[in-house]
Amino acid sequence: MLTDHAVTEFPTALAQQALKELVTRAPLVHCLTNHVVQNFTANLLLAAGAVPAMIIEPREIVEFAAVADGLLINVGTLTESSSEALALAATEAGRHALPWVLDPVAVGGLTFRTEFCQRLISLDPTVIRGNAAEICALIGESSLSRGPDSQQSSAQGAVAARTLAQQSGSIVVVTGERDYITDGQKTFFVDGGSALATRVTGAGCALSALTAAFVGLRGDDLVSAAAACWLMKRAAEYARPLSVGPGSFALHLLDGLYRIPQETLNDAL
Amino acid sequence: MLTDHAVTEFPTALAQQALKELVTRAPLVHCLTNHVVQNFTANLLLAAGAVPAMIIEPREIVEFAAVADGLLINVGTLTESSSEALALAATEAGRHALPWVLDPVAVGGLTFRTEFCQRLISLDPTVIRGNAAEICALIGESSLSRGPDSQQSSAQGAVAARTLAQQSGSIVVVTGERDYITDGQKTFFVDGGSALATRVTGAGCALSALTAAFVGLRGDDLVSAAAACWLMKRAAEYARPLSVGPGSFALHLLDGLYRIPQETLNDAL
Amino acid sequence: MLTDHAVTEFPTALAQQALKELVTRAPLVHCLTNHVVQNFTANLLLAAGAVPAMIIEPREIVEFAAVADGLLINVGTLTESSSEALALAATEAGRHALPWVLDPVAVGGLTFRTEFCQRLISLDPTVIRGNAAEICALIGESSLSRGPDSQQSSAQGAVAARTLAQQSGSIVVVTGERDYITDGQKTFFVDGGSALATRVTGAGCALSALTAAFVGLRGDDLVSAAAACWLMKRAAEYARPLSVGPGSFALHLLDGLYRIPQETLNDAL
Repeated sequence: MLTDHAVTEFPTALAQQALKELVTRAPLVHCLTNHVVQNFTANLLLAAGAVPAMIIEPREIVEFAAVADGLLINVGTLTESSSEALALAATEAGRHALPWVLDPVAVGGLTFRTEFCQRLISLDPTVIRGNAAEICALIGESSLSRGPDSQQSSAQGAVAARTLAQQSGSIVVVTGERDYITDGQKTFFVDGGSALATRVTGAGCALSALTAAFVGLRGDDLVSAAAACWLMKRAAEYARPLSVGPGSFALHLLDGLYRIPQETLNDAL
Repeated sequence: MLTDHAVTEFPTALAQQALKELVTRAPLVHCLTNHVVQNFTANLLLAAGAVPAMIIEPREIVEFAAVADGLLINVGTLTESSSEALALAATEAGRHALPWVLDPVAVGGLTFRTEFCQRLISLDPTVIRGNAAEICALIGESSLSRGPDSQQSSAQGAVAARTLAQQSGSIVVVTGERDYITDGQKTFFVDGGSALATRVTGAGCALSALTAAFVGLRGDDLVSAAAACWLMKRAAEYARPLSVGPGSFALHLLDGLYRIPQETLNDAL
Repeated sequence: MLTDHAVTEFPTALAQQALKELVTRAPLVHCLTNHVVQNFTANLLLAAGAVPAMIIEPREIVEFAAVADGLLINVGTLTESSSEALALAATEAGRHALPWVLDPVAVGGLTFRTEFCQRLISLDPTVIRGNAAEICALIGESSLSRGPDSQQSSAQGAVAARTLAQQSGSIVVVTGERDYITDGQKTFFVDGGSALATRVTGAGCALSALTAAFVGLRGDDLVSAAAACWLMKRAAEYARPLSVGPGSFALHLLDGLYRIPQETLNDAL
């Protein structure tokens, strides 16, 4: 159980400030992500006002680390060959002080990616984002992982997130009905969203990419990571009443991700 | 020509029973599928109530065969390298008695995949699903294959399907305006759907994944394969009057795949 | 600055004639394109009435060059390994007189793909399509490339396009608010479209595939390339008033690409 004084709701005013930065500066986000979600991830970043780039050749990864604003590493369709490119990207991020996010998809249930994610964590990701089962697995807690959907509540994951943040030095985000964002000392939560998001493949993966966009602004990383969660929750709430199923929900989610930052910007003018 | 007594329309009551099982049990489906359709396939499975997982590293394929409920192998973007992973998955499925579906995309016109599909068929897929040109090609009938769209009617394919089922011991599904599902003795057909489905890439590939979800329930495999066809036809009919082109059709198809199983379940309560 | 007499607006009558050909003949387009946009590219070609095929194994590339009508080569997610398959496809296209389109995604900023694109240009693409930054980079003009979105206007790119066309012997298309299509002597332009297209990943990549479909009709290549631009602009204008963000825009764009050729055909009957 997290002690109450350390856990506070993420303030809307901080989110709106981060959104204005995002729209104004359009960070360039290098996404090394799985095959299933590349298109949705790129569309989600473009909708919100960031600029995605998917580059996988090792020589280009080295060059691109010098110009990107943020980096996402997602292990969803990891192979032995691609793992070397991902580790190289993480190392280059360290050399260039490039903020980066690790999405440890389905870690725990599969040995190869579990060992690889531990190797990546030793390369100091700025943020680690997963569901409760994934975050639990990263601190060695057993979980019955059945694919990417967590069977454990994010409330349980929140305790694991704080432990992982303290162990790793990374900010840890655990998402679910309530999202928790913690640096091991201070913890924000964000409520809301829609259960339909669990019926759209890559919604979590794309949130990790969005987190890379926000931390690419190089402000307060804890605030940046929480702002990404906040924007996704608000976009899901925009989409929910307009949707009759996951097909329409995915469409309206992208529309919401486009409109909410722009409206926030317009309100400020 | 198929003799009449062996061909019957698939009963709605059997379809509805299979749908309730699907929603209740949410089978975990390992999809080894082509690069083009991974996102749509995952979204279609999630919409219908199954849980997709796309895992391609051989060491993880071996581990995952022990936990998956069903497996799809689709050769659309086959390479020499990926073919080894696909054959490994088929072998592991045999070891674990894991039901699996082969989708022999564009077989016949291209030598490498044609030989590889014959190798996969020798590994005993539970179901083989293709269009008429693909099923004809698998029994050595010549067909002028121009990409994934069949130029032959599924009625012609139905005869080839029965022959292939008798030769291979697999259930064979040939889809088109009328779908046929046969074990070589008994044949179901399913009518309906919409021609707009031929304008959405991966509609057939995703049906193969859905078939893997249904046979993953480990009931009567012939009924399971027919139930997958039935659900896709009904979802297409849900989508058709709401659509003005293939963009809107794909969206409403996903919504239909979400609503139809849930409404079937609710009607039963 | 381009001299006025060489630059004319592309005539609607020529576009409509090309559209009728497209719908009537349904060209088969082999797309060797990046991982991010394969699904959208295939859906866009199907919507417009062409037939996409994504085949990546070298042995199949060789076989398929004999049956395809057009070929797209897009370097968005280039690797050393895939580059050999792409070069092979370009070589086979030359052997079979198969029209092909090069999309030099993000060329200029990254050394490996820049050198590789120069190699591909030496293999005589029928058409090169890019944004202004990419076309400038191909003639050695420096540009500050930040991902796929051009920071330079297509008007500046038009001058570079004419130079590149004269140097390479290829038709060059530079797209932006105004598209320019040139063979180095004669230049067409196409106006219109919507800024929302820049928020949909792969809109440019898919236009390159559509260009491969049109040049696959083996008419006047300059007219064919311009017709592809014309159709995308008209589809974007169909989509714009129906859309509230990039999610709905992408859907209506596909619907427009389906309806516009069909309505053109119906008007002619």
